[in-house]
Amino acid sequence: MRIQELAPRRTTDDLADLRLYDRVATRISELIEHGTLRPGERVPSVRKYSAQQEVSIATVTQAYRMLEDRGLIEARPQSGYYVRARRWTLPPEPEIYRPRPQVTRVRMPDLVLNVVRASFKPDIVRLGATLPSPELFPARELNRFMAAVGRRAPHASHGYSAPSGDAGLRLQIAQHAIAAGCTFAPDDLIVTCGASEALNLCLRAVAKPGDIIAIESPTFFGILQIIEALGMRACEIPTYPREGICLDELAQRLKCCRIKACLFTPNFSNPLGSCMPDEKKQKLVEMLAEREIPLIEDDIYGNLAFAATRPKVCKAFDQDGWVMTCDSFSKTLAPGYRVGWVAAGRFREKVEYLKWTNTHATSSPPQLAMASFLQSGGYEHHVRKLRRIYAENCRRMSEVVSRCFPEGTKVSRPTGGMALWVELPEHIRALTVYERALAQKISIAPGPIFSAKQGFQNFLRLNFGNPWTDQIERAVVRLGQIIAAVSAESPR
Amino acid sequence: MRIQELAPRRTTDDLADLRLYDRVATRISELIEHGTLRPGERVPSVRKYSAQQEVSIATVTQAYRMLEDRGLIEARPQSGYYVRARRWTLPPEPEIYRPRPQVTRVRMPDLVLNVVRASFKPDIVRLGATLPSPELFPARELNRFMAAVGRRAPHASHGYSAPSGDAGLRLQIAQHAIAAGCTFAPDDLIVTCGASEALNLCLRAVAKPGDIIAIESPTFFGILQIIEALGMRACEIPTYPREGICLDELAQRLKCCRIKACLFTPNFSNPLGSCMPDEKKQKLVEMLAEREIPLIEDDIYGNLAFAATRPKVCKAFDQDGWVMTCDSFSKTLAPGYRVGWVAAGRFREKVEYLKWTNTHATSSPPQLAMASFLQSGGYEHHVRKLRRIYAENCRRMSEVVSRCFPEGTKVSRPTGGMALWVELPEHIRALTVYERALAQKISIAPGPIFSAKQGFQNFLRLNFGNPWTDQIERAVVRLGQIIAAVSAESPR
Repeated sequence: MRIQELAPRRTTDDLADLRLYDRVATRISELIEHGTLRPGERVPSVRKYSAQQEVSIATVTQAYRMLEDRGLIEARPQSGYYVRARRWTLPPEPEIYRPRPQVTRVRMPDLVLNVVRASFKPDIVRLGATLPSPELFPARELNRFMAAVGRRAPHASHGYSAPSGDAGLRLQIAQHAIAAGCTFAPDDLIVTCGASEALNLCLRAVAKPGDIIAIESPTFFGILQIIEALGMRACEIPTYPREGICLDELAQRLKCCRIKACLFTPNFSNPLGSCMPDEKKQKLVEMLAEREIPLIEDDIYGNLAFAATRPKVCKAFDQDGWVMTCDSFSKTLAPGYRVGWVAAGRFREKVEYLKWTNTHATSSPPQLAMASFLQSGGYEHHVRKLRRIYAENCRRMSEVVSRCFPEGTKVSRPTGGMALWVELPEHIRALTVYERALAQKISIAPGPIFSAKQGFQNFLRLNFGNPWTDQIERAVVRLGQIIAAVSAESPR
Repeated sequence: MRIQELAPRRTTDDLADLRLYDRVATRISELIEHGTLRPGERVPSVRKYSAQQEVSIATVTQAYRMLEDRGLIEARPQSGYYVRARRWTLPPEPEIYRPRPQVTRVRMPDLVLNVVRASFKPDIVRLGATLPSPELFPARELNRFMAAVGRRAPHASHGYSAPSGDAGLRLQIAQHAIAAGCTFAPDDLIVTCGASEALNLCLRAVAKPGDIIAIESPTFFGILQIIEALGMRACEIPTYPREGICLDELAQRLKCCRIKACLFTPNFSNPLGSCMPDEKKQKLVEMLAEREIPLIEDDIYGNLAFAATRPKVCKAFDQDGWVMTCDSFSKTLAPGYRVGWVAAGRFREKVEYLKWTNTHATSSPPQLAMASFLQSGGYEHHVRKLRRIYAENCRRMSEVVSRCFPEGTKVSRPTGGMALWVELPEHIRALTVYERALAQKISIAPGPIFSAKQGFQNFLRLNFGNPWTDQIERAVVRLGQIIAAVSAESPR
């Protein structure tokens, strides 16, 4: 009933349409992946496929355009659509990694800050940190909204916002969250200084120093750093490269150690790019609610699905308020604005209090500018563009890795986000590769920083969030050469 | 040597001049306070006083203008300066409060958040929270800088700033901190989301949950809330209403309980308005450095001295990096920007790491706009204006309290900041006054929230940071009536 109030009917229709296009596109891409439709072959004509599948011509046209955007098919004038030639075969995927079931006091090496700092150097090719490129963002439009806010509401933009954030922004966030399956009231939300603050507040609301937090393995080093800084301990749960954490293993660990909370990234986890299917999300939420264990859900990549519709969040299946969803605009709109939010369910009051003590309130001008931008409708258009770019970058980077990295390399198959997870042959130390690459002004993220136990010694993460350029392509090729050289020097 | 590089010579000269005017003005105001010069009497002429004291005519002229600004003397055409008539006598000052020497686990009542929330209601007279009034701030100028930053550096204002903050802003802060006696390099500083984040990071850098933090008594409730939220304990040190904490008591407590850090507001502490003299600051810094105990110094009111020059910070006396100075622009320029900073001395690295894990970086556009504004030179002019307004508001509020509050009331003598600390006769419960006032749309801050032990049952704090209006004057008069009514009902 709340949804009806918040969402204009058009949006719901649009969403349903997009989902339909997506289903049709997925069926065709499966035919290509399975080899039923081979490179250079003609795809069924729009008219024919529409008749066969009993969907409208418009729907098939849209689905084919999506496939074209993703680089899978190409239009030839007066002839129709053809499967694009692939001059490369994707290497196999990494397998699930099963760390020993052991609780770890997290100690992050200084290396992590160095990886981050390297990404701020101006003359470096940034394949390391997943800092999205500001050039891909609507900076000028946002600046216009920022200037307008200053003129229209000079005092509001200078005074404190309420600790929970600007009411107009919370309304916009609630409306946009409908696409993720959520039915928020604006008051369910608390605006934070990015998702980092949201994760900090959630952890502090439900756990104390020494408490055990279940995390994915591998997991984003920033999450490990937050857990370390709060003096908490980590229990790493094996995670499937495509479908997220292993629920059986989680059930096992819940039995044998006192897990206080889970902190997962169900949509396009970093670095794996895995995306948990809906049924699995539902099962996870039920499993934890039954045991009264809070699930902190980091959804910062959820909007970056390569498909036309974004996946649901775990929060969409939350009946009893045990799920706390954290998100931000840092990966989709304006990293430097530091605007994030949390829907903390039954812990809302506690989180608001901690927000107040931690930073009082989020900076007002960015909140107001972002609210205006969201209201203008510019966000959806921009995110659609971004997804297409990231999908294409992912394809290109996977291609170069396939061509230029040594045999035995394995590569993830992300369906969203901006990171590729690469497993090198076992005898190659990612840290050596990292150091050599940095000396040649290429930053990458070495595998060991994605684990509290510093596993993943032969893994690395590549960020494809920057606009694809010759310089980037050359850097990935160069990286392949560096890896080959390290491989040749290393005893097998 | 660093100073020379940072500060243009003019600034140092100006400062020396201001200090001189201030000394002359202080001497005259003491003559007035002691009754040597009485209301209506003529002050020595500029020429005469200049000859007597062997200072220049220009200096005496400036000093007299200051006294005029503070409402102590008035110019009469063709006749000279006269001591202004006072139609009221200030009640006595509150005395030092000596809580039992006992370490307290801090539990802040919900009341505190209610006091804060009341200040966000639009139709309330805000004498409660020390939220400065945006109308007193150069909102339009800052907005112009904000818009210019967006045009000039669209990408920089959208990308992440470095975790330690924008280099240009840190340079400006370092230059402005010269007036507080500091010789910072820009790299000594870390920009934070307001002083609240700075205090959080400092506490987390030097203490763990359960550790004991020495604080002033009374102390700002926001500091108590931070200590509570971090699970630390408080040891309240008796504090003189004029000169800050009692060093003997502190020495005593340092001997008998394991104090992990001190968190004081040496300049215009909130709510007392006390200002520690320089020698005492130096002694405090030496005493703590000797015992290797960090001093976290909250200086958010330091720039709001009623005198022409601001007092030094403890950091100015810090030889070994044990002092961590936190400050922000929230009380002087733009609360809603949430831009603060910390000079964390020997804990700099640790604090930067915690800043990274807590919020990654401070919002970029407010940092860049503020850097431009500071560079433009607008800040000093604005702060001078603000100080004059606050000094005048303090005088006016003290006057109304003197006239309208019941006999037995005591009132602080702040020399800076924006709060008046009022002690009511012992039988009057400040909480009752708070509730009655709120029902009449007047918010005040009741005494018990300024203590971990919820002492100060008959105290209240009044904020004079809003532009003085008839509405505010009427509210203070009304408050006097409410207090009288509560007094009449309460058993003595």
